[in-house]
Amino acid sequence: MTLEAIKYENDTLEILDQLLLPGEHKYIPISSVEDGWKAIKLMQVRGAPAIAIVGCLSLAVELKKTLFSSKEELSKFIEEKLNYLVTSRPTAVNMGKAAKKFIQKSESLTTNSKFTLQDMLKRIVTAIEEMLPNDISVNKTLSKYGADHILQLFNDEPVDILTHCNTGSLATAGYGTALGVIRTLHERKKLLHVYCTETRPYNQGARLTAYEHVYEKMPATLICDSMVSTLMDRRGVSAVIVGADRVVVNGDTANKIGTYQLAIAAKHHDIPFYVACPTTTFDPHLETGKDIHIEERPHEEMTHFNGVSVAAPGINCWNPAFDVTPASLITGGIVTEFGVFKPSELAEKLVPIGMSLHLEDPDHVNTGPS
Amino acid sequence: MTLEAIKYENDTLEILDQLLLPGEHKYIPISSVEDGWKAIKLMQVRGAPAIAIVGCLSLAVELKKTLFSSKEELSKFIEEKLNYLVTSRPTAVNMGKAAKKFIQKSESLTTNSKFTLQDMLKRIVTAIEEMLPNDISVNKTLSKYGADHILQLFNDEPVDILTHCNTGSLATAGYGTALGVIRTLHERKKLLHVYCTETRPYNQGARLTAYEHVYEKMPATLICDSMVSTLMDRRGVSAVIVGADRVVVNGDTANKIGTYQLAIAAKHHDIPFYVACPTTTFDPHLETGKDIHIEERPHEEMTHFNGVSVAAPGINCWNPAFDVTPASLITGGIVTEFGVFKPSELAEKLVPIGMSLHLEDPDHVNTGPS
Repeated sequence: MTLEAIKYENDTLEILDQLLLPGEHKYIPISSVEDGWKAIKLMQVRGAPAIAIVGCLSLAVELKKTLFSSKEELSKFIEEKLNYLVTSRPTAVNMGKAAKKFIQKSESLTTNSKFTLQDMLKRIVTAIEEMLPNDISVNKTLSKYGADHILQLFNDEPVDILTHCNTGSLATAGYGTALGVIRTLHERKKLLHVYCTETRPYNQGARLTAYEHVYEKMPATLICDSMVSTLMDRRGVSAVIVGADRVVVNGDTANKIGTYQLAIAAKHHDIPFYVACPTTTFDPHLETGKDIHIEERPHEEMTHFNGVSVAAPGINCWNPAFDVTPASLITGGIVTEFGVFKPSELAEKLVPIGMSLHLEDPDHVNTGPS
Repeated sequence: MTLEAIKYENDTLEILDQLLLPGEHKYIPISSVEDGWKAIKLMQVRGAPAIAIVGCLSLAVELKKTLFSSKEELSKFIEEKLNYLVTSRPTAVNMGKAAKKFIQKSESLTTNSKFTLQDMLKRIVTAIEEMLPNDISVNKTLSKYGADHILQLFNDEPVDILTHCNTGSLATAGYGTALGVIRTLHERKKLLHVYCTETRPYNQGARLTAYEHVYEKMPATLICDSMVSTLMDRRGVSAVIVGADRVVVNGDTANKIGTYQLAIAAKHHDIPFYVACPTTTFDPHLETGKDIHIEERPHEEMTHFNGVSVAAPGINCWNPAFDVTPASLITGGIVTEFGVFKPSELAEKLVPIGMSLHLEDPDHVNTGPS
């Protein structure tokens, strides 16, 4: 069964406490906006889409059990609670974007006399409740396209896949992007083996992806980032699939540090390299990857583990959080909810089918450890 | 000043306790074979050449303060002590080879009536005492050749170097191989910057190489293994230099896991890639790297740090200790004490100048974490 990081059933919200992973698998109830704020602040939930969904759902839970006497009172309540949720982790821009969207919707419903207080409440709650299934649906659709594309390359024979970082249920609303494609291959009994890199320095692969693999009993093996090329040479891999933090107009892709090196290794061994992401990840404001700023993170992420020093004291570090893979190395394609595209096809094929709808705001990118 | 892991002055032997590194820099006295055995067993000294030198020098220290009544008694003493030292770490083959050599020498001196007891004692002790300066001398010579070659490529301008694992004073008799070349560049004020990879899973780069860099005040930066390609792309590197565990006839080179991936990244960015090692590392018994067996090490090296689990419980791992870089990727050359050679020149040029003298025994290779 697919790992669920966010459960919302019968007006009850629960999240998998990611602070306890991979040691303990425990759900905690989120019964109020205050609970939601704390869970985000403490990083019991993480990953930009997941934060926005948990924050907004915590508001839906509270809206359903509160009595309001007027639309104005409801609107004020929504605005205050959403603005409060945004303060939980100011860098998680998805929460900020969702807050802006729902505050606007609430103001618009308040001033529109066609809608009663009950209409307004219902419309707001429904819109929030749709976030979770909508995001999962997008991931499942792109995963189907990705799996189809890979299996077509290999005449429907089972495949070995290599992935990087965590792009699964624990990083998204659910199901996952690159890990969603792998999940779909596994569900179709076409996954021979999946290899995940430990993904230094934050170890998302060793901690989270490996956890998802074990949880779902996938045939999986963890390797160090430095072992990828030897794996390709000695054991062989059918394809590499990774997620994306940002895809720009020419197809250049920013993703977790180490992705670029994987793409070079894949090219060297003639192995197709795929990027899987929803089209919300596309950024029409940047022409090429050269324009992408590489965020550098604190040295302690490299030099310390759980507060214990693991490197020579006094050594200087360089800790870029992500890197840019040029479109020319994305040889398999870019897997989206609208199909699999060559990087060169993005501008031409995606805009007509709705890519531009998602692209008004370039600041949705979360490039830190996620 | 160059870091000294083994100090031998005025008949006194001291070693840097590597178990305390990088936290504490402390020398411990080795006053007997028993002390030497314990230091090796506890891994206070590590690295195959260093183990053999410390073991044999601990015997020299003891020989100098012991009274012997006959050559036979001395010979028996030497044989017993050396055989005991070999039991300290049976996989460290250099100690075994040294023991064999000195036992043969001792037997030969015993039966040769030209030599008195005092002659014999002096010859054995002198031969042991020569091990340390001889090994350092070889490293300094190859380092000079390596630095000359690189500086010639860059018109004597200062260079940025990337290295992997630990090949310095802490892994050799002293000075180092790849790190020896870097040291020489630094001494000549031609080292702009050195980058060292952390070298997962055993972190020799973060723990030991970084320590040597800090100790000698080199301009140095630590990066994760996954950051190499982005470093080459965004910051630029003049050359890559690594050590070797084994170089076979066609120039294919076995070295610490991750080396092959570095070589692919260097090739992709058109950066010269060097291997630095004494000719004792050459193996004339294997024609190509395909014949090299890749040792796999315990999963705990990847999944645990200081006994604490850092990965999802139950995940399967693949932990090859080293990999093989094909000669075609060694674009800079192979740096030895006889000069810098293209891999294709090895067989032709090295045999006439003495390479074959070192090559009687293929089992000198230590491919574990070192």
